[in-house]
Amino acid sequence: MKLAVIGLGLIGGSMAKDLRRTKFATEIIGVDSHPLNAKMALEMGIVDRIETLESAVKEADIVLVAIPVDKIVVLLPTILDLISASTTVIDVGSTKREITESVKNHPLRGNFIASHPMSGTENSGPSAAIEHLFEHKICIVCDHGICRPQHLALAEKMFQSLGMPIAYMSSDEQDHTTAFISHLPHATSFALANAVLAIEDRNIIFDLASGGFQSTVRLAKSSPQMWAPIFWQNRDYIYEALEVYIHHLEEFKRSLKNNDHEGLTSLIVNANKIRGVLVGENSSLTKNEETIIKLYTK
Amino acid sequence: MKLAVIGLGLIGGSMAKDLRRTKFATEIIGVDSHPLNAKMALEMGIVDRIETLESAVKEADIVLVAIPVDKIVVLLPTILDLISASTTVIDVGSTKREITESVKNHPLRGNFIASHPMSGTENSGPSAAIEHLFEHKICIVCDHGICRPQHLALAEKMFQSLGMPIAYMSSDEQDHTTAFISHLPHATSFALANAVLAIEDRNIIFDLASGGFQSTVRLAKSSPQMWAPIFWQNRDYIYEALEVYIHHLEEFKRSLKNNDHEGLTSLIVNANKIRGVLVGENSSLTKNEETIIKLYTK
Repeated sequence: MKLAVIGLGLIGGSMAKDLRRTKFATEIIGVDSHPLNAKMALEMGIVDRIETLESAVKEADIVLVAIPVDKIVVLLPTILDLISASTTVIDVGSTKREITESVKNHPLRGNFIASHPMSGTENSGPSAAIEHLFEHKICIVCDHGICRPQHLALAEKMFQSLGMPIAYMSSDEQDHTTAFISHLPHATSFALANAVLAIEDRNIIFDLASGGFQSTVRLAKSSPQMWAPIFWQNRDYIYEALEVYIHHLEEFKRSLKNNDHEGLTSLIVNANKIRGVLVGENSSLTKNEETIIKLYTK
Repeated sequence: MKLAVIGLGLIGGSMAKDLRRTKFATEIIGVDSHPLNAKMALEMGIVDRIETLESAVKEADIVLVAIPVDKIVVLLPTILDLISASTTVIDVGSTKREITESVKNHPLRGNFIASHPMSGTENSGPSAAIEHLFEHKICIVCDHGICRPQHLALAEKMFQSLGMPIAYMSSDEQDHTTAFISHLPHATSFALANAVLAIEDRNIIFDLASGGFQSTVRLAKSSPQMWAPIFWQNRDYIYEALEVYIHHLEEFKRSLKNNDHEGLTSLIVNANKIRGVLVGENSSLTKNEETIIKLYTK
């Protein structure tokens, strides 16, 4: 299987590593608009060679599009213009409505699988690429009914080879769900970093930073190149999620202001329920994978 | 050195384990108002025996008070009433103003060292106790000028034996700083859990929960017995921190509402500065320990 990876960052690079390891890909062609990234990915052995977008896309069996979501909407129609009828195109962007909208009338829309593998780290670039990043993490596949069966099947095989159970939903459902589970936590982390960076005696504060602060603020290290376009494309649902979240923060403020001991305690007791519904911290979804697969099978 | 540990939970239990390992304590007496916790700590070998508060405190060289902060303000004056003039008392609560206030006129105030070791996990009880929890983490010692030199020296020796650099500040400074670096991250995590638990299709959301969500929401698993009293005792500074934080969240909302691409990007770029000021994620403070010690030496 000849794989073209467009965008050799954390996600594209990590997928390339795993797909080579599992022997799903026998040949990997890299494309990256930053020559330095391309060079590094080649030197690290993540890709076998670097080519232009045109030539990479033309000879590949699968084209994996792993660039920021604002770049995907621009490049995806071009990629579908360039491929043959037998090529499968998969994007891995964190938003889906604008991306699927960008190719909805394309004659080769059926060759394209809109996906969102639910894994990542706060780091970026080819040097951030790591093996096993996707194992036991869910991959969302959107609007699969529009895909031609052989392309969908190949994409599913690829995600399975990465160790990912697949959840099927519409682009709209995915954008709404992801606004809460992924985009909102990034916003809360960015805002926490900004709040603490703004205060006067911040040096003292950083010196004292404990594990609790560090885990809560970890996502604030995520790159603006990737995240500003995600916020942008999903702004309506992220706005909604922020409003819901601020409402819950205001409840803490209210309980403190009103000397409401009982109210404060019940807010914490309720939050604790997250323990029951989430698997362990660095967890994979192994424990309830079967349920998930049952829930979201097409 | 005979050590009495009042409260055999995560902090008391973890300290006992380390102080035995480093041979700082040769004998450890446990006190816990929950018989089950006491039994478990004894069976796990965290303590050598269980005694009543009165008898434990009377025979110990050091009394370590590791119970929720609302219990500390009640028990601390009694403990100082019970000890001999040569006994050192150390508390490890997350707030300091109300605690130091509770004993400010006690004749043995000089025997008491108000401290806050900046480490923990979201788990509680003796079974959550782990070794090396405090290594290279900072311990705040408050109002040390009031302490009698021999008691301060012994407390410092104990924290050093746990591997902790010490930062000296006033109770007021500690409560303000800690509101931002520890209490606010807990509030943001509790509120995030509540926000996501409140939405209708929450099962889908939890199934999809990625590492990013899990790290941001981890602290929401923390116990109300410990955290409600902390919020309560530090409510003015936590209220201030929440206001600052909500202001920064509103900036994200505003940039989305006003189609302000540049503004959104600059919020993320600013948040990224946290990368430069924080050491690695699971980090200790080893890297800048020397600076810290220089900054906060008495």
